[in-house]
Amino acid sequence: MSDTGTISRRREATRQKLLDAAAEVFAEVGMDAASVETICDAAGFTRGAFYSNFASKEELFFALVGLVADRRVRGVRERVTALEAEGRLDVTPGNAVDIVNHVLGLAPDDRFGVLLFNEIRIHALRDPDLAEAYLEQEAATCASVAQLLDDVASQSGVGFRLPTRDVARILVTSWDSAAVRGVMAGLGAEELGRHIGDELGSIAAALLVS
Amino acid sequence: MSDTGTISRRREATRQKLLDAAAEVFAEVGMDAASVETICDAAGFTRGAFYSNFASKEELFFALVGLVADRRVRGVRERVTALEAEGRLDVTPGNAVDIVNHVLGLAPDDRFGVLLFNEIRIHALRDPDLAEAYLEQEAATCASVAQLLDDVASQSGVGFRLPTRDVARILVTSWDSAAVRGVMAGLGAEELGRHIGDELGSIAAALLVS
Repeated sequence: MSDTGTISRRREATRQKLLDAAAEVFAEVGMDAASVETICDAAGFTRGAFYSNFASKEELFFALVGLVADRRVRGVRERVTALEAEGRLDVTPGNAVDIVNHVLGLAPDDRFGVLLFNEIRIHALRDPDLAEAYLEQEAATCASVAQLLDDVASQSGVGFRLPTRDVARILVTSWDSAAVRGVMAGLGAEELGRHIGDELGSIAAALLVS
Repeated sequence: MSDTGTISRRREATRQKLLDAAAEVFAEVGMDAASVETICDAAGFTRGAFYSNFASKEELFFALVGLVADRRVRGVRERVTALEAEGRLDVTPGNAVDIVNHVLGLAPDDRFGVLLFNEIRIHALRDPDLAEAYLEQEAATCASVAQLLDDVASQSGVGFRLPTRDVARILVTSWDSAAVRGVMAGLGAEELGRHIGDELGSIAAALLVS
């Protein structure tokens, strides 16, 4: 391994630690109240390390939006692929709750993820560049879920009462709403996952034509 | 009219102006970035006037949550009552889009209302007292919409594929999601209303059993 390789790997690790620390700080106190100093303290780095990775707090926040989006979409894709590989995509109104639970509910964003996601949304409502990134991410998530629904439909011979793209959007939106209410009600991670899965499952079942 | 009456009326007007100005400031820059001074400047009052009405910026924000919630619920109730009075609650899958459009879509929160609502939500996610107020408001809105759906069902002889309370929540949630995406995409008030109405109408139609 060359010195350059070691340096760029170390640099990447620093960048990742700053992103992780910032995600927590932004989620807890919001981007406006968060300072570069607080983020550096939480990550255990100096301000110098911060500014050699990000030009500003805003640039770091923007990088986070992309990360959170990728993680969300990748999670759905991975769980769909796993279900397909196991031949478990045979959906009926009876097991729709479980399948949806598995794909969207089983790995619920916990309180922290929900906070960060809502922090991103309020800033995207005020900033056209962030808005574009948010809408792209939202479309990608819905497309992943719609792909799952198409797979379900072709494997199980069921149909949906709306185009799968619309069903996907209803599920993603309801997931978010259930997560927000669950977090506000103070549910722990496990209860939260069950609460989200139950709500989404009954919606999915209502939109299914067997 | 007694002097006391005039004073309390003037006091109420000052309080209302401060609330209106704060709503705009909070929506545009967020509660954390908003200062009491900015709010006073926007309302045309001194800090003395502010502090004789509110103990803090937070207390004012809390009062705003209640106001926004009441306005939203009252709007839905009034439009439902008007439709009933005109005998226009006879819903079919064919006119569901128009009815939903009228009740939920016709008076869309504009960009400013959507911003304020999302600002309230992110703070409610961090503050248990605000969370309680938010959840109460959300439940009241869903109950109003569910009442409309029950009226529709009994007058039109149609049914829904889920309990009306669940259908109401899907509609309220989808309304919020459509509004957020519309604002991020830069839609004007009229386009925004049409966009929300179209999305909600097709969801309502899919959940209807005629």
